[in-house]
Amino acid sequence: MPARLGYGLRRCNLQKRRGFQNARLISVDSRNRLSNFWTPTGGISPQDGEQDDSHALLVRGGFLRQAHSGVFHLLPLGLRVQERLSWLIDKHMATLGASKLSLSSITTEALWRQSGRYSANSELLRLSDRKDSGFLLSPTHEEEITSLVAGMVHSYKDLPLKLYQIGRKYRDERRPRQGLLRAKEFLMKDLYTFDYAHEHALQTYQSVRTAYNNFFDELKLPYLVADADSGNMGGKLSHEYHFVSPKGEDNVWSCSSCDYVANEELVEKRTHDTGRLPTSQELHFTGISVDRTTKIHIHVPYPARLVNVPCSDGTKLNVYVPRPDILPPSLLSSDSTHIEKFVNLHAVKKAAIDIDTGIEKTTLQSFLPKTTKTIHIYDRLVPYPKYPDSEIPLNHLDITRIYPGDPCPRCESGELKVQKAIEVAHTFHLGTRYSEPLKALVAGPDGMAKQPMQMGCHGIGVSRLIGAIASLLADDKGLNWPRVIAPFECIVVTTPQVPEEDGVEVYDILREGAQGYEIVDTVIDDRPIKSLAWKLRDADLIGYPVIVVLGRAWKERRRVEVQCRRHGVKTEMELEGLKEGVLKLLDLL
Amino acid sequence: MPARLGYGLRRCNLQKRRGFQNARLISVDSRNRLSNFWTPTGGISPQDGEQDDSHALLVRGGFLRQAHSGVFHLLPLGLRVQERLSWLIDKHMATLGASKLSLSSITTEALWRQSGRYSANSELLRLSDRKDSGFLLSPTHEEEITSLVAGMVHSYKDLPLKLYQIGRKYRDERRPRQGLLRAKEFLMKDLYTFDYAHEHALQTYQSVRTAYNNFFDELKLPYLVADADSGNMGGKLSHEYHFVSPKGEDNVWSCSSCDYVANEELVEKRTHDTGRLPTSQELHFTGISVDRTTKIHIHVPYPARLVNVPCSDGTKLNVYVPRPDILPPSLLSSDSTHIEKFVNLHAVKKAAIDIDTGIEKTTLQSFLPKTTKTIHIYDRLVPYPKYPDSEIPLNHLDITRIYPGDPCPRCESGELKVQKAIEVAHTFHLGTRYSEPLKALVAGPDGMAKQPMQMGCHGIGVSRLIGAIASLLADDKGLNWPRVIAPFECIVVTTPQVPEEDGVEVYDILREGAQGYEIVDTVIDDRPIKSLAWKLRDADLIGYPVIVVLGRAWKERRRVEVQCRRHGVKTEMELEGLKEGVLKLLDLL
Repeated sequence: MPARLGYGLRRCNLQKRRGFQNARLISVDSRNRLSNFWTPTGGISPQDGEQDDSHALLVRGGFLRQAHSGVFHLLPLGLRVQERLSWLIDKHMATLGASKLSLSSITTEALWRQSGRYSANSELLRLSDRKDSGFLLSPTHEEEITSLVAGMVHSYKDLPLKLYQIGRKYRDERRPRQGLLRAKEFLMKDLYTFDYAHEHALQTYQSVRTAYNNFFDELKLPYLVADADSGNMGGKLSHEYHFVSPKGEDNVWSCSSCDYVANEELVEKRTHDTGRLPTSQELHFTGISVDRTTKIHIHVPYPARLVNVPCSDGTKLNVYVPRPDILPPSLLSSDSTHIEKFVNLHAVKKAAIDIDTGIEKTTLQSFLPKTTKTIHIYDRLVPYPKYPDSEIPLNHLDITRIYPGDPCPRCESGELKVQKAIEVAHTFHLGTRYSEPLKALVAGPDGMAKQPMQMGCHGIGVSRLIGAIASLLADDKGLNWPRVIAPFECIVVTTPQVPEEDGVEVYDILREGAQGYEIVDTVIDDRPIKSLAWKLRDADLIGYPVIVVLGRAWKERRRVEVQCRRHGVKTEMELEGLKEGVLKLLDLL
Repeated sequence: MPARLGYGLRRCNLQKRRGFQNARLISVDSRNRLSNFWTPTGGISPQDGEQDDSHALLVRGGFLRQAHSGVFHLLPLGLRVQERLSWLIDKHMATLGASKLSLSSITTEALWRQSGRYSANSELLRLSDRKDSGFLLSPTHEEEITSLVAGMVHSYKDLPLKLYQIGRKYRDERRPRQGLLRAKEFLMKDLYTFDYAHEHALQTYQSVRTAYNNFFDELKLPYLVADADSGNMGGKLSHEYHFVSPKGEDNVWSCSSCDYVANEELVEKRTHDTGRLPTSQELHFTGISVDRTTKIHIHVPYPARLVNVPCSDGTKLNVYVPRPDILPPSLLSSDSTHIEKFVNLHAVKKAAIDIDTGIEKTTLQSFLPKTTKTIHIYDRLVPYPKYPDSEIPLNHLDITRIYPGDPCPRCESGELKVQKAIEVAHTFHLGTRYSEPLKALVAGPDGMAKQPMQMGCHGIGVSRLIGAIASLLADDKGLNWPRVIAPFECIVVTTPQVPEEDGVEVYDILREGAQGYEIVDTVIDDRPIKSLAWKLRDADLIGYPVIVVLGRAWKERRRVEVQCRRHGVKTEMELEGLKEGVLKLLDLL
């Protein structure tokens, strides 16, 4: 459905009186009133099926619009949210002592070859220019920043150094989806840290985590911080920041009792549990290696839970009992398309077995006859067969998946649960992963040979965060924004019968701020051609944290109605104390 | 020469006391003092030959750094200048009632084919992605914005609409040069206007010109506004904003007496002058058509000036007399490599003769034997020969170039002069050039068929403006910034012997601002490891508008020295009245 262009929101022009700073994105007409603030919204409540589709709400609300598959234009409301989010990030980066710069979006194949990341990345977008210069669009800037700093920093005295930017990044996404959550062009905050000694780098890492926690706390939304694998970014220390959401593509595991949180790759088993598995409880799957030469047989137990069974002789026995809650009868066959449900493929891969996890069943069947080798992998709970049909059976590995309800690896009483989550930020300790190949070396205090710097890289997905927050807070009436990134904190809505000056009077009260007093970032909707009901639905759709209505109560007794959907507030207020009342509500949001 | 990293500028942390707004790009250390503000400068005066090379000064001063040919990273100081410039643009766009958005950098071949610009543009950077989607990097956004607005605006009631963005653009520049002046990746402000009727569009055009003039006035630098040809952008009404500079690649013509200014394409001749040209005074050149099929002979007079010669019979005669000041003897041969010095090739091209202006002499010679046709072009001052050696000689055209000293076409007494200039902004009335092919139609008030919108597009080269201003104000000591875009308005520099608190005290006085009182945007350089002389040279190189020194006068009688290089000011001041004194100086900058 095409979003429509609104007629124009207005508010009093305060530019001359109070300086420019409050009027950045709002337009002023020649009669000294704001007009033409672009709100291309349908102004009606979400339609069936749209409630869960926050991306459709962002489009309908006039925040953004898809330009091409996975590529978006930010409209004025969306840009306002993005600029407020950027401001919040700047604030927390400043507490870290990080300096802001702006790296080019263009990088080169040569530099990526030097770091060794060129061939591994299939999502690089290449530029074809007249000189065939091997230009790429950066999906991330480790190479460029390391090369830049290598040319400018030569002594430990110049460290620590913390540099960040907020800029567009590019990825040749195979299947762009869910709007801002997975796009080809996206906005990231990326911070790079440089230290001399390893222990300094770890201190820096901790200070970044503190800044990230403070940043997320200000959004006032629940988030998870998961231990994470640093993957092909190198290094060992890494954390992911997640919002729990059914739209998420990551699995985050957490304990019902302690604060253990880990992502799918890193979630651990409780290792000291041992028990006996009934031999019949076995599944086996067939896979193939990425190079198509090797057939891989995997033997795992049925999903089972360790229970302590009292025996007839008075002793107790640890026994694994099957869990039909995990294994629906329909999946009882060892169909390889379900392999990921039963086998921890991360563990298989860690054992240096290059199993192809993306292959489809029919393709697999056509390739199997051509394989020349066969290897077997047995989970540690599955006993070896007497005569394995391969000459070199692999050792027992721990490749059973973890299932919801499994015991927590950290505490005695907790059970693990898994939730779908959206990853919105990530911290990495990189070590010398980039400083070594790109020769970012510094002299130390001891006059010894130069050493590669200790680096960290720390991202926040800015556009993804906007999409994630929109999805987190959307309800059946529309979007809903945390105060700190809302396009406006408050909207003053008037019935068409209320004189223009009345709306402006209320607006002025909310915006009036002496030094040291907070003001409420407000916009007026006094469009005369729309009904009050239409304008309220529109305000709900856009998701202003607080709505101030000049309706019947205003005409009868000069009182406004203050609404806050997130807290179910709908209350009449006098003008006296209105600003304080609204600020009090905003403090909760 | 590689720029070096500074040790760190410090200033007092005001974050807790006065809110965050003043601390955006400056880092705070854990002892509540700012540190690690990244100033990778050599801290020494410009070297030989560097005075004219403002790009080298920007690199040495730590504003930017070349990443690849024509591709730059903005370092913290450079980003600060860019952000202040963007803020100034936002301010003037707000007075126009324009709303800010952010369009994707990615566009598509398909859309550019629809507007008819795809084949004409040889500077488009293409993306190669896995699906071969025909993605491009936008050099400008007419296609995208028109397509966006076409989908959202359907009635004249939604107009006028003014939308702008400040974003990166891309051009496959054949020879990137002069740093930010001609780069592959650059920052532009582009405003697009949409009106219903032609007369409204012209009003909009005038209001944009007013806003542009106000914007340039705030920079307090002399600029020229030239009538311009709108080229392949379509439409008729167009103006260019130029800074006069020897680094410029444009020629701007202006009158010594009236306010006539025009660019090379549009500069006019005084048409009512007629006179007789001595027949001997003829030059001819040989060229070739772009398709290599046609030899083109061009006949023009020697550069000449019309003079009024008193004759022996008492009458007066208008006669063209040669101008050896224009035509040095060494160029007397009709060597085609000098064709542009004598022939107005724009006029030749306007007569639909597709002459190849870029061909080299040797290449020309090798192609000439293969041509099948010959055409002759005679300037209107050159008489036809009796037997032209072509069957269809072309009519006389006005293809003589305009030379400095030629009479002004607008006033009686003025003479034209030409200056090298850098184009930094451009306004275009587009008409329906894009709205027609991209079907951006609106219904009118009369219920008649929908009509294409009347559009305008208006650019400011943000990164180019930074490069141009740097070049305009650089002197033998370094850069120099207009107050309104300086990275900081003022720097407090202390000798190593002055206690830290003293610098902070002066800093606090300059930053102290009650509501309504201006503050001075200040930074402190109290780096202990550098001498005062080093730090002053560094401050001169970076180009802070005002420098406040705590040196000998401070130690002896608690007075600071206030320096302003642009106005040759070096004066002692008491702390009492210091802020007012600095603000007074800043008002001039």
